[in-house]
Amino acid sequence: MTQKIINVGIVGGTGYTGVELLRLLVQHPNAKLTAITSRSEAGIPVADMFHNLRGWTDLKFVEPAAAALDQCDLVFFATPNGIAMKDTPALVKAGVRVIDVAADFRIKDIAEWERWYKMPHACPELVAEAVYGLPEVNRAQIVGARIVANPGCYPTAVQLGFLPLVEAGVVDIEHLIADAKSGVSGAGRKAEVHTLLAEAADNFKAYGVPGHRHFPEIKQGLTHIAQKAVNLVFTPHLTPMIRGIHATLYARLTQEVDLQSLYENRYANEAFVDVMPAGSHPDTRGVRGVNVCRMAVHRPQNGDTVVVLSVIDNLVKGAAGQALQNMNIMFGLPETTGLRQVALLP
Amino acid sequence: MTQKIINVGIVGGTGYTGVELLRLLVQHPNAKLTAITSRSEAGIPVADMFHNLRGWTDLKFVEPAAAALDQCDLVFFATPNGIAMKDTPALVKAGVRVIDVAADFRIKDIAEWERWYKMPHACPELVAEAVYGLPEVNRAQIVGARIVANPGCYPTAVQLGFLPLVEAGVVDIEHLIADAKSGVSGAGRKAEVHTLLAEAADNFKAYGVPGHRHFPEIKQGLTHIAQKAVNLVFTPHLTPMIRGIHATLYARLTQEVDLQSLYENRYANEAFVDVMPAGSHPDTRGVRGVNVCRMAVHRPQNGDTVVVLSVIDNLVKGAAGQALQNMNIMFGLPETTGLRQVALLP
Amino acid sequence: MTQKIINVGIVGGTGYTGVELLRLLVQHPNAKLTAITSRSEAGIPVADMFHNLRGWTDLKFVEPAAAALDQCDLVFFATPNGIAMKDTPALVKAGVRVIDVAADFRIKDIAEWERWYKMPHACPELVAEAVYGLPEVNRAQIVGARIVANPGCYPTAVQLGFLPLVEAGVVDIEHLIADAKSGVSGAGRKAEVHTLLAEAADNFKAYGVPGHRHFPEIKQGLTHIAQKAVNLVFTPHLTPMIRGIHATLYARLTQEVDLQSLYENRYANEAFVDVMPAGSHPDTRGVRGVNVCRMAVHRPQNGDTVVVLSVIDNLVKGAAGQALQNMNIMFGLPETTGLRQVALLP
Amino acid sequence: MTQKIINVGIVGGTGYTGVELLRLLVQHPNAKLTAITSRSEAGIPVADMFHNLRGWTDLKFVEPAAAALDQCDLVFFATPNGIAMKDTPALVKAGVRVIDVAADFRIKDIAEWERWYKMPHACPELVAEAVYGLPEVNRAQIVGARIVANPGCYPTAVQLGFLPLVEAGVVDIEHLIADAKSGVSGAGRKAEVHTLLAEAADNFKAYGVPGHRHFPEIKQGLTHIAQKAVNLVFTPHLTPMIRGIHATLYARLTQEVDLQSLYENRYANEAFVDVMPAGSHPDTRGVRGVNVCRMAVHRPQNGDTVVVLSVIDNLVKGAAGQALQNMNIMFGLPETTGLRQVALLP
Repeated sequence: MTQKIINVGIVGGTGYTGVELLRLLVQHPNAKLTAITSRSEAGIPVADMFHNLRGWTDLKFVEPAAAALDQCDLVFFATPNGIAMKDTPALVKAGVRVIDVAADFRIKDIAEWERWYKMPHACPELVAEAVYGLPEVNRAQIVGARIVANPGCYPTAVQLGFLPLVEAGVVDIEHLIADAKSGVSGAGRKAEVHTLLAEAADNFKAYGVPGHRHFPEIKQGLTHIAQKAVNLVFTPHLTPMIRGIHATLYARLTQEVDLQSLYENRYANEAFVDVMPAGSHPDTRGVRGVNVCRMAVHRPQNGDTVVVLSVIDNLVKGAAGQALQNMNIMFGLPETTGLRQVALLP
Repeated sequence: MTQKIINVGIVGGTGYTGVELLRLLVQHPNAKLTAITSRSEAGIPVADMFHNLRGWTDLKFVEPAAAALDQCDLVFFATPNGIAMKDTPALVKAGVRVIDVAADFRIKDIAEWERWYKMPHACPELVAEAVYGLPEVNRAQIVGARIVANPGCYPTAVQLGFLPLVEAGVVDIEHLIADAKSGVSGAGRKAEVHTLLAEAADNFKAYGVPGHRHFPEIKQGLTHIAQKAVNLVFTPHLTPMIRGIHATLYARLTQEVDLQSLYENRYANEAFVDVMPAGSHPDTRGVRGVNVCRMAVHRPQNGDTVVVLSVIDNLVKGAAGQALQNMNIMFGLPETTGLRQVALLP
Repeated sequence: MTQKIINVGIVGGTGYTGVELLRLLVQHPNAKLTAITSRSEAGIPVADMFHNLRGWTDLKFVEPAAAALDQCDLVFFATPNGIAMKDTPALVKAGVRVIDVAADFRIKDIAEWERWYKMPHACPELVAEAVYGLPEVNRAQIVGARIVANPGCYPTAVQLGFLPLVEAGVVDIEHLIADAKSGVSGAGRKAEVHTLLAEAADNFKAYGVPGHRHFPEIKQGLTHIAQKAVNLVFTPHLTPMIRGIHATLYARLTQEVDLQSLYENRYANEAFVDVMPAGSHPDTRGVRGVNVCRMAVHRPQNGDTVVVLSVIDNLVKGAAGQALQNMNIMFGLPETTGLRQVALLP
Repeated sequence: MTQKIINVGIVGGTGYTGVELLRLLVQHPNAKLTAITSRSEAGIPVADMFHNLRGWTDLKFVEPAAAALDQCDLVFFATPNGIAMKDTPALVKAGVRVIDVAADFRIKDIAEWERWYKMPHACPELVAEAVYGLPEVNRAQIVGARIVANPGCYPTAVQLGFLPLVEAGVVDIEHLIADAKSGVSGAGRKAEVHTLLAEAADNFKAYGVPGHRHFPEIKQGLTHIAQKAVNLVFTPHLTPMIRGIHATLYARLTQEVDLQSLYENRYANEAFVDVMPAGSHPDTRGVRGVNVCRMAVHRPQNGDTVVVLSVIDNLVKGAAGQALQNMNIMFGLPETTGLRQVALLP
C-alpha cells in the first residue's frame, strides 16, 4: 500500500514553534519536510542550532526566495505576526494550503485585528475564508480549508475549558473570568530582557491586565460557540517554567447541571482532550511535550461558581501539535497520526 | 540612652519560618535571642544547619524542656499546627507573651478550626482572647495582646488586597474570587514528594480546590472587615519558585468608585503596604526577602470587574516579618525596627 | 510476519526509573508489560500516580507476591539497592532474565560493594556472572546474559567520556578527574529535605566529595577498559534542574594524538553516542528524554590537558533507556527499537 | 561626631551590577548617591525599573553629561567593557577616585587585554597605576589607589580558593584546574537568546572552553601571588540559577601539608572569607546576597589531589559587594561598613 506523503514547508523555523514543528514532523510518517526558511540563518544546518535534531535532519535554513514553497502541499508559518498575511495570497493561488501558527488570520473583524496588532492587514479577503483551527469546534470546516488560522496558546486552553459550559448555556456568559498562567516559552525565542532567566526565574507576575491580544480571540471564539455575545476578564501571568499553560476558569452557574457528565460527554470522542475524574488537579508537566488538553471541573463549597482547571503544553496543543492535528484533518489522515507521544515526566 | 531589649525564644526553629525569624532577629537591634528549641536537632549549632547564619549566632538547638522559655519576654511558635495551643497556657500564666506563626489561634470558631485542622483544640478559652495579627486591621488590639495569632501567608495577601474594597462596601462580597499562586517554601521544610524539585519545577498546578485551610481564615477576616458575611472562592496554586505569593483577586463592583484613590488613601500611612501607580504589575521578586505587600488595582476594559494584584514574600510579610512587625507593636517599638531591608533583585 | 513479544515485569515502579521505564515500554513495539509491583501503592492504577500515562496503560500496581514475575521473559528491578539481589536467584532459576537498574550487581569485588552499600550481599555467586550493561563496552557479553547490571548514571557519562582516551592509552590514567553535575531526579523520587525545590532550586553545591558510591563503579569500569589500574578524583554536584548529567572530564596527555579523530572513530558505529564537531559544547537539554550520550573533546590553549564534555539524560541513557537498550540486545532486536525519540527542546 | 560622607556616582546603572550597587549603597551609612547615569533610560526613576528600590531612592537616571560626576568623591563604572577607560582619565584629573567594576583596568599586559577584549585600550598609562581590587591580596595598595580594577566574578572565586595553596607553594602551579559554574546573572542584564529562561532553565552546559576572558585575569592574579608563572585550565559552565558561582578547584600536591590549618590560618583575619570545617560542602545559596567567599578544602581518598570548593554570590563578592569593600578601604572606613547582611535562605 502506498503511503500518502505530504510535502511540507516551514516559513520561519528558528523560533520555538518552528523547532517544535520540526520535532514533530521528523517523526510524522506522512510528512516530508522539503524546506525551512530563515533570512537570518540561511545556510546553517537546522541541527546546528537545535541539538535535539542532530541525526534527524540534514536540512539547512534557506532564504525564502530559494525555498520553492509553491511546490509544497502545505506551508506552515511559524513567523512573527504580519508575515503570513503577505505571503499567503500567492501560495494559495499556487494551490498550496497554509496553516498560520501566528495570528494573521485569527480575528474576523479586520478593524479589531488592526487595533490589537497595530498594523494594516494585507489580505482581508482571505481572513473571511480562513478557518479557525480549533478541531474540537471546527473539525468539519478544517477538512476542506485552504487557510487554517491555528489558535493561540491561551485561547486554546481557555476555549476548551469553557466550551461545555458555554455550549450548554448553563453559565453567565457576560462575566467569565480566565486567570491564565504561562511558561516563558510562550513569549518566543526572542532576545528580550523580561524573559531572561535572571528576570523571570523565581518570580511570578501578571502582565497585560489592561489588555492582551488573546482577549479578542477568546471573546470571538466563545461568542461563536455561544451564538451570542460573551464577555470575560482575561488575566495572563508569567510563570517561571519553560512550557505549559494552566488556565483557571471561573463561571457563575445559571442553572443546575451535572458538571462532570457534561464535560465527559462533550469530550468523549476527542482524542486530545482528557477530562479527569471529579476532584482532580491536572498539572502542566503531565502534558509536557504532548498534544493534549487535560482538564478537571470543580464546584467549591458546592456554591454557584464553577472552577475549571485546564492545562496544555503551549508549544504543542497550544501551537505546533495542534497545527499537525489540523494538517492530519486537512489531508485525510487519522487525526492522531504522528501525535502519539508520551509526556515527559518528571 | 538605654535601649529596650526583648528576650526572645523560638519554639521549632528548623523550618523555613524558623530560619527566617532567625535571619531577621539577628539583625534586630532590640531582640536578644535566648533559646531556640528543636527535639530532633538538639545540640546542633543553628549555623551548621543554616549556613547563612554562620558568624551570626553561636546558639544551638535545645530540647524544649531545657530552654527556660518562661524567662523570655516573648516566645514565637514556628511549629507545626497543634503545638502552640499546648504550650501557650503555661507561658501566658508565666507572663510570657506569645506570637504563634502557625494556625492554632487564628480561627475564632473552635468547631470550624477543629474541622479544618482535624484535631481537638487544647485551649479554646485562649482563642477568644488571642488577637489576629494583621496590623493593618488590628493594630490597636495587638499593642496589648498576650497572644497574637500571626496570619497565614495566603490570608495576608488576599485580605490586604481586598481590604479597601470590602471596607468601602463597593463590591459584591458574596462572590469574591481569590486566585492565588505560591512558591513551594509555603509548604514548609518537610520531607515530602510533591515539593521535590523534580516534581515541582517546570510545573504548575492548582491544589486544594475543594477546600484549603486558609479558606475559613480569609472568610473570617473579610467578614470581620465587612461587618457582614463574606463569601469567596479561593484557588491556591503551586508555582515553581522558592518564595513569593501572587494573589489575583476579582470582585464585581456594585457602585462607581475611584479605585486608585481608594487604595492609595487606605494605605497612605502603612509602612508595609505599597500601592503602585495605576496600570502597574507587581512582581514577587520585588518583595523577595522584605516585609512588604505590594499591590496594583485594575479595571480591565473598564468593565464592572475589579482585578487586584497583590504580592508578598510568603516567609516575610506572610510569616516571620509580620511576626516581627507584631513584636514591634507589642513592645512599643517603631513598627519598622529591624525590618528595613531591600529586596534581593534579581 | 509474527513480531517477537517480550513479556516484561517491573519490580518497584513508583520511582523515577520506574516511570521512565513505563514511558519507554508503552511505546516499545515488542515489549508487553505484564506486571508492575509496589508494596506501598498496590491497587492504585499506574496512570493515577503518573498523569503522563493516562490513556497508555490500565495496569495497576500489585503486591510482589501477586505479580507472577516468574512467568515473565524479563524483569527489571527499579528498586532501592538491596532488593534485586534477594529476588534474582529465584527468578533466574525460573528461567527469567533480569536487568537490575539499581546497584546490586555492579561491583565485582563483594567486599568493596559491601563497604560502599553498607549491607551484606545476598548472592555473591551471581555477581560474578552478571554482565555490566554498558553496551559500548560489553555488547557481546550482554547478548547471552541472564543478569545485566545496568550502569549508574554518573558512571555512564564518565566512562563513555573517558573511554577513547583510556582505551588508546594516551593519558595518565592515575590522575583522571571527573567533575560531574547532576539534576536532582538523580536522587530519586524520595521524600527528603535536601532535594526539595525550596532547598535545591537557585542553588549549586558539591556533595560526597570524600566518597560517593559511583566512585568504585567508575574505577572498576575504567580499569576494565584500560586493563590496568585506573585512579581518579570524582566530584559530584547537585544542579538545580530536573534531568541531565554533565560530566566535565580532565586527563593529562602522555603522547600526541588527534583527539577528534580518536573520538569519532571509536564511536562511529554507536547509535547512542554522538561526538560533536571540534569546538562544540553539548548541553543537557539537547538529550532531554532520549537515550543519547553526546560529547565534545577540547584541548584548551593547546596544552597537555584534555577536557571532555559528556552529557546524558540521567533517567534515559543513565538508567531506563540504557536498560531497554540492553533488553534489545539480550532479545536479538535492533538496538534502537523503541528508543528513537527526539529530545524535548526547549 | 560627624560622620564621613562619600559622594558617589554610578555610570551605567541599568545592569545587574548597577542595581546591586544601588541595593547596597542605599543601605550604606556613609555613602551618598548623587548621580546615576544611563543614556537609554535618562529621565526614568530608578525605582520604576527596579521595584526593590521603591521607597529607597527618588533618583532618576540622567545623561552622563548632566551627572556632574567630577563633583563626586568616587565614581563606580558598572558599564560594559570599554567605557570606563574612556571616561576615567578626566575624572582622575578632576580628583575623583574610580572603581571600575568592568574589565578595563584588570589586565596589566595591554596587548593581552586587547587580544581578549578585541579593542584598542584608551589609556594604557592608567592601567599601570590601577590597583587590582582583591582586598585579601592587595589591601595595602587599595588604600591609596586612585583607580581600582574590581576583579571579575570567576577570578574572585578561583583566586581566593587557590590562594593559600599557591602562596604556600605546595602544589604544582603549572597544572591547576578550575571547573567553575555560574548563575546566569553573570551574563548581565542584556537581551540575548542564550540566557532566556526557556533556553537556560533545566539545562546545563560548559561554554568558552577554548578560551574565556577571565582566563588571563586568573592567570595574572595567581602568577602575582606565586611570584612565578602559573598555568591552569579554566572551564566555565552556565547553571540554571540566578546568582552564585561555585568553583571546584583541583591541584596536585607537591609536598605534605595540613590543608585545613593552611586555609584557616590564611583567612583568620579576613571578614569576608569563611573557611568551613573539614568535610564540608558550601552551597551558593548560603552566600546569596552577601559579600562572602565561603570555601571548604578536601583531599579525596587521601590521594595527591586537593579539591577546593569555593562559592560566592557573583553579584556581591563577585562584583558590587567587593566594590563597596574596596570603597570602604579607600576611604578609611571599617571594611565591613554597610556589608553586614544575612544571606537569604531559602
